Amino acid sequence: MSNESASSREPPDTREEIMHATYNALHKHGYAGLSISRIAEEGDFSKSTFYHHFDDKDDILLSFADFIILQFEQGLDRESTRGPIEELYLFMNFALGNHPLAEGRPDAVERMGVWIELRSQSIHDPAFAEKFTETTDKYVEHLTGIIADGIEQGVFNDVDARKTAIYLLTTVDGAILQVTTRTDDLRPVVWEHMNEYIKDYVIRGDIDLDELPFDAEFELSAGTE
Amino acid sequence: MSNESASSREPPDTREEIMHATYNALHKHGYAGLSISRIAEEGDFSKSTFYHHFDDKDDILLSFADFIILQFEQGLDRESTRGPIEELYLFMNFALGNHPLAEGRPDAVERMGVWIELRSQSIHDPAFAEKFTETTDKYVEHLTGIIADGIEQGVFNDVDARKTAIYLLTTVDGAILQVTTRTDDLRPVVWEHMNEYIKDYVIRGDIDLDELPFDAEFELSAGTE
Repeated sequence: MSNESASSREPPDTREEIMHATYNALHKHGYAGLSISRIAEEGDFSKSTFYHHFDDKDDILLSFADFIILQFEQGLDRESTRGPIEELYLFMNFALGNHPLAEGRPDAVERMGVWIELRSQSIHDPAFAEKFTETTDKYVEHLTGIIADGIEQGVFNDVDARKTAIYLLTTVDGAILQVTTRTDDLRPVVWEHMNEYIKDYVIRGDIDLDELPFDAEFELSAGTE
Repeated sequence: MSNESASSREPPDTREEIMHATYNALHKHGYAGLSISRIAEEGDFSKSTFYHHFDDKDDILLSFADFIILQFEQGLDRESTRGPIEELYLFMNFALGNHPLAEGRPDAVERMGVWIELRSQSIHDPAFAEKFTETTDKYVEHLTGIIADGIEQGVFNDVDARKTAIYLLTTVDGAILQVTTRTDDLRPVVWEHMNEYIKDYVIRGDIDLDELPFDAEFELSAGTE
């Protein structure tokens, strides 16, 4: 999307403003309660400005799906200076909502709620199903890459990188569904067992995690509870 | 619910007919596209009959959540004649949508779609969040009971039964979210790794699963793809 550096421009990009208003309207009212009027209420633009950019609710929501997917993807940077073990732990923290870039951004659980809300539209809309299949595949590919690098560098066991990535991300999807639809937060329990799995199956047995220069744990960030 | 044995009565229970019509309307149109007219279209009753039983869309949907939760719970019977290992595999198959009672009932993935659709209302509606927390806790309790029995009978390792149940059911939740919102079905891959976890962590190492009188596998039933 070309709006990426819009914050440095004057005046602010209208499309991006509509996206932020859509986020707020979706967070407040959900998909079922969403209307163009409610989106316009959240931003400093009129309904006619909206219709200049988008045809209808479905049109904006598919573009909005791209927008939030891009926001999540911005957290997916990889730095070769980090080893695969640190990359793996950073990624798992990111996926479970402990985002190192979260400062000043909406609460992780709030963002996950908007994500689940949009993703569940896939149940009735093949266009959403295709978009979210493509997106969640990017996460699978990213994690597969980390695991494959770890195998190549001899710090991970010789697991099936792609299947292991799918398995871990399925559990992450479940944790996200739970934290957005239950009244409590089971992520610490889930992480405890997931970390056991990672340490026993993925990371080579003779590597001492206590000797690594980072904490191989999941910590709920301050803004997530 | 007192409607349980309604099928043997004459005339058929109107509330139950409204529930089945709601299922069909929700499956076809989703929560956002649902209306009382569309529910009435799916059944042999008028809008005024509907309003005799329910106040509005939210009122029917909370009752409907109870109705489908009850349907899922009917699969949760336990028979003491089965050992904990067989109970565990039956439960995992059931949870992943391979329902032994599925014959003549709606497709498992279709039912999961309706379940996710309703469950995602919890994001904006605390009444739904409380209902689905209570329900998903029943699954946790059920699986915790199976694991605790297995530990007591010496066929499972001395794991934390409740945390292990939460971990396994989180992965199941993820698999359900995926199969209802992606264009493909990752459950066989997820099951492969989940079964490894069960065999290595939960079931005692010296037990030979090949010698058990049932198949310790997950099979997609004919109606699920």
